[in-house]
Parts: sequence; C-alpha cells; structure tokens
Amino acid sequence: MLGHIARSLGRLQLLQSSLPSIRPVSTMALWPFSSQPRDFSQPNSTWSPEMCKVYDHYNALCDTDTENKERKRAPWRKLPSYNRSIKYATGGIHLSKMIKAQARLFTRNIKEQGATFEYVVFVNKEEKRCVCVFQAGHLLEGAPGYVHGGAIATMIDTVTGTLAGFLSGPIMTANLNINYRNPMPLGSVVLIHSALDQIERKKQFITCKVTSTDESKLYTEATALFVSISVDHLFGSQN
Amino acid sequence: MLGHIARSLGRLQLLQSSLPSIRPVSTMALWPFSSQPRDFSQPNSTWSPEMCKVYDHYNALCDTDTENKERKRAPWRKLPSYNRSIKYATGGIHLSKMIKAQARLFTRNIKEQGATFEYVVFVNKEEKRCVCVFQAGHLLEGAPGYVHGGAIATMIDTVTGTLAGFLSGPIMTANLNINYRNPMPLGSVVLIHSALDQIERKKQFITCKVTSTDESKLYTEATALFVSISVDHLFGSQN
Repeated sequence: MLGHIARSLGRLQLLQSSLPSIRPVSTMALWPFSSQPRDFSQPNSTWSPEMCKVYDHYNALCDTDTENKERKRAPWRKLPSYNRSIKYATGGIHLSKMIKAQARLFTRNIKEQGATFEYVVFVNKEEKRCVCVFQAGHLLEGAPGYVHGGAIATMIDTVTGTLAGFLSGPIMTANLNINYRNPMPLGSVVLIHSALDQIERKKQFITCKVTSTDESKLYTEATALFVSISVDHLFGSQN
Repeated sequence: MLGHIARSLGRLQLLQSSLPSIRPVSTMALWPFSSQPRDFSQPNSTWSPEMCKVYDHYNALCDTDTENKERKRAPWRKLPSYNRSIKYATGGIHLSKMIKAQARLFTRNIKEQGATFEYVVFVNKEEKRCVCVFQAGHLLEGAPGYVHGGAIATMIDTVTGTLAGFLSGPIMTANLNINYRNPMPLGSVVLIHSALDQIERKKQFITCKVTSTDESKLYTEATALFVSISVDHLFGSQN
C-alpha cells in the first residue's frame, strides 16, 4: 500500500502539475552529496546481456527524453526512478512530520548495484499499459536459489502502482491478488506487463503478469486495485 | 512464492526430520566468519520499547528452548530466523546448482539492525496459528513516511508461509490476496496474526491480519494458499 504514492509524486512532477502543495524543491536540501539525484533505472555494469537487450528494445521505442519542446514523438516513455520521492515535493507544515532523512524507497534501498531490484519501467500512455524489465539480484532469495514471493509481490505492487499513478495521479493500493505459477530463479530477467482494466469512479483496476523476456513462460499473474486519493490526504493536511 | 520453503527447511531441521536428503551440515561450510549462525529474531538495541514489551509477553508463554529433553511445556514456541536456509540442508548433486554464496534471504539481507525488517515469529502448534511481532525500519518506505505495500506483502508471505511450513513441511505459495485497509507509518510495531483456515489434500488455506499491538487498529487483511511440495521438487532432483 502506498508504495505507489511514491511514483505518483514522481508523476506529478513529470506532468508539471500546478498543484500548489507539490512543487520541485532544491535537490540539495535532501540530497547533500550530489547536485543531481541518481536515476536508478539507468543501465549499469551488473545488467546481464539479456537485461540490456530488452532495455535497448523498449528504449528505442521511446520519446527522446529532453527538455526541448520539440521532442521526438514515440509511443513509449521511460520513467526515471529515485530512492526518495519526498525530495520532489513539499507539503506544508504537515510534510515535516513525515520527513525522515534516512528513509529510502524499499525497492531502491541498497546502494550495491545488482544485489536486489534492478528494474526500469516503460509506459505507453495511449494504450494505458506499461512494461517493466526486472533483473532479480542475489539478495532477494526465498527458497534456495529462487526469488522470494514477497520480492515478486513488491515488484507487482511497484509496477501496477506506477501505471495507476501515471494515469490517475496520487493513489493508494487497496488490493493485490497474486497467483504464483512458476518459481523464478535468482538472477532471472523478466518482463512485468501491467495494463489498465477498468476505472470505476476513484477505483483503478489493473492487471499484471510476469513472464520470461520472450514471453513464453508465465511466472506470476495478478490483479491490483488502486484508489485515488487527494493530495491533502497524501500529506495528512486535513485542516 | 517459495519464500516459505526457506522456513520449511528450518522447520525440517527443528522437527529433526529423518529425510535422508535433508540433514544438518557444518555451519562452517557456508558461514565462514562464525561457528554459530546469527539468529536475527533475537532482541537488539534498535527494538523500540513497544517491540520489546510484546516480545517479552509472547516469550514468557514459550517452551524453554533448550536441547534438554525435559523442557518446560508451554503453548507457544519462538522460531529462530537466519539469513540463509541453505546452510541447514544438503540436497545431493542437484543442490549445488542452487548454492549461490552471496545469496541471502530477502527479509534478512541487510546487516544494519533496525533498518528494514525486525521481526520474530511465535507459533502455537495446537491452535495452528502464529503471531509475528514486526517493526518496520526506515528503508522500507513507499509513500513518504509510510511502509511500502510490497514490504507488508513480504511479511504476510513470510508469516503465513512460516505457519504453513511449520504445520505441513515444504510448501510453495500459490496465492496471496491482500487487502490494505490503513497505511502503516514507518517505524510502526505491528502484530501479524496468521491461522490455518483449512486443509484440502496438498492445499493449506491460511488467513492473516496485521494490527496494531493492542489489536485496536487493522492495517491489512489477507488470505494465502500454499501447496505442499516434495523434497525432490524442492531441490529439482527429478531423476
């Protein structure tokens, strides 16, 4: 739950939302060691050839991600990924109680590259779907040699929540229903496909499946339900 | 999925299973820095007073955990928790392909105490249920200030799987269905209650709810389905 508000915040910034309580702030305030936050979804030396190949495939289908208004139009967009969403938002006096300097996004909480979650999300706004390329590191073990069910659930939560947040703004996870079909060996590179099924008022129903990169093997299937929340709700500023 | 086989293996050892392919081996082989593996469920200085209080409550209800045959009988038992299950098992030639020296159990993959999952599981065999005391560290963040839904799913997978494995031996997660009712602030101490609902042949249906330590607030409800697997299946030794 709420794993997605993190992405929603990123979304809000990307979409240049004019909401007064969400605005970019100096990254120096919460990122003292660099003037630019690290984008964890950039390729690194721990990515396997398979991971790189799939990344290159989707990256070639993407909008050129520049700040130039005359960008190349393409169906896909690669989303950046940081280890704290909070540094992109201010929320008034109520935000201060939630700022914990040491807190880090669960999926990006280890500096060692390749050890846990290596992933990048590509989103297709027109088709209301996204694809995540995920390489499972050696610190995600459940049964000997296999990825922990909780790590897979975490990625499903992350990817479906990213899509819901991208399409609808701030959301909370209300339900995850996950069917594990086949065990996933540590080190696997998989695709996590996520698509909008339907919207009912504030509810977004999302489907998800985790497959091998050639899509021949199904590892996991899931549905997810997200509920839109207000920015006030997000920051607890009811008064 | 399979997050539970890890616990099942621990169970197998605890139950002194006579299965020939699962037997204790020297901890030196996979634990080069100590003659004794670290039990991660022991209290440490990062545990809050609330965590310690609940731990003491359940610990007082436990069997005295000695190797003396004349142990004190009590309804509850505290389970140990290690960062690798593999060091307690050998599985013949097929095991070797799964041994990755750097691999660590997902929930115990960070040495820094208090940063991620601090938890201990108490099981009541007669009542076919268990209770986990869980303190959520600052590296489990989803939305700013709150625990990531995937981290909660991971603990639900872990606790329900521990119970299923304790009662039935090696199992795999087949389904997790999780309803998130209230956001859980980072640093929270919660109880994860898990109980056997029913057994149908190889299927164990488990219920789970996550509450505040006084049980007045419900954070999450879930059901889980586990399927018993053979030890051969576990180690992939079909031939």
